[in-house]
Amino acid sequence: MDSLELERAFTLLEPGPAVLVATHDDRRANVMTITWTMVMDFSARFAITTGPWNHSWSAITGTRECVIAVPTVDLIDTLVGVGTCSGRDTDKFERFGLTALPARHVRAPLVGECLANVECRVEDILEPYGIVVLQGVAAWIDGARRERRTLHAVGDGTFVVDGERLDRREMMRAKLPPGV
Amino acid sequence: MDSLELERAFTLLEPGPAVLVATHDDRRANVMTITWTMVMDFSARFAITTGPWNHSWSAITGTRECVIAVPTVDLIDTLVGVGTCSGRDTDKFERFGLTALPARHVRAPLVGECLANVECRVEDILEPYGIVVLQGVAAWIDGARRERRTLHAVGDGTFVVDGERLDRREMMRAKLPPGV
Repeated sequence: MDSLELERAFTLLEPGPAVLVATHDDRRANVMTITWTMVMDFSARFAITTGPWNHSWSAITGTRECVIAVPTVDLIDTLVGVGTCSGRDTDKFERFGLTALPARHVRAPLVGECLANVECRVEDILEPYGIVVLQGVAAWIDGARRERRTLHAVGDGTFVVDGERLDRREMMRAKLPPGV
Repeated sequence: MDSLELERAFTLLEPGPAVLVATHDDRRANVMTITWTMVMDFSARFAITTGPWNHSWSAITGTRECVIAVPTVDLIDTLVGVGTCSGRDTDKFERFGLTALPARHVRAPLVGECLANVECRVEDILEPYGIVVLQGVAAWIDGARRERRTLHAVGDGTFVVDGERLDRREMMRAKLPPGV
């Protein structure tokens, strides 16, 4: 994984990909699938919505750390599989053949198979909504990866794959933050 | 516009499209571009992140109503144009040739050119984050529209268009909410 400038990390989540969220509860690493995410500003601050019905909730709220990992289309069955079983009774890294790489600032692991990873600290938990405010503290991208198309969950069991990319940089130049 | 069951409205935003948010401040209708959105549950409850630097902020917080409209790829220059000028000095519906259709429950208009619209009430505003919690109260979709591919803002001035759609309904059946 290559280092990615933190001020570019929001561009990983702004398009709305389905992601994995890795945690470590001092016993073992775990990972869940999340599609309810939101960029909050340009400083790698993100929100996710989840709750105590997810086994990862206690690790996130207890350790106040996690890693957001961005999978690509070749990982669709891993993404769906991770989202349809529980860390309560499953070692998901083992079951899905995922590689837990050491992160720099948090104990939660990077997911080696993913296109990108963002190490996050929990800044706040907004109840009763289950909104977790995350501050990215380091970001990583696999620059050598050929497959870079991400997945967008529709919520009905189907997923939209990234298609063509359109460029409106000129029209938007005055609105773009520095560094992107 | 055809009525869409409210329990399906989250599937409009879950894939993470860039959207328009229409308001009416009792003087005139306005519209802004938002890419920082999040589904919060299956009941058409959404979060958006914005703030007082947007002219629409005072209409959203003052009237506690808005409409989320989902544009498609043919509207990319409208989406970018709306996002790069201000309702402070521009009638954006007029400038971009948008059709303000009457909504059923809110004074903010539906955007006639869009694929879908969700009428929303403001349920909460989570400061200091500028997170606005919205409760959808009616949803509409243009069932006759041929172009249905939405846009995903990357945040660097480029946009990813919806590509192919993959079906994992069988794997996910136990996780899908009723009605989708």
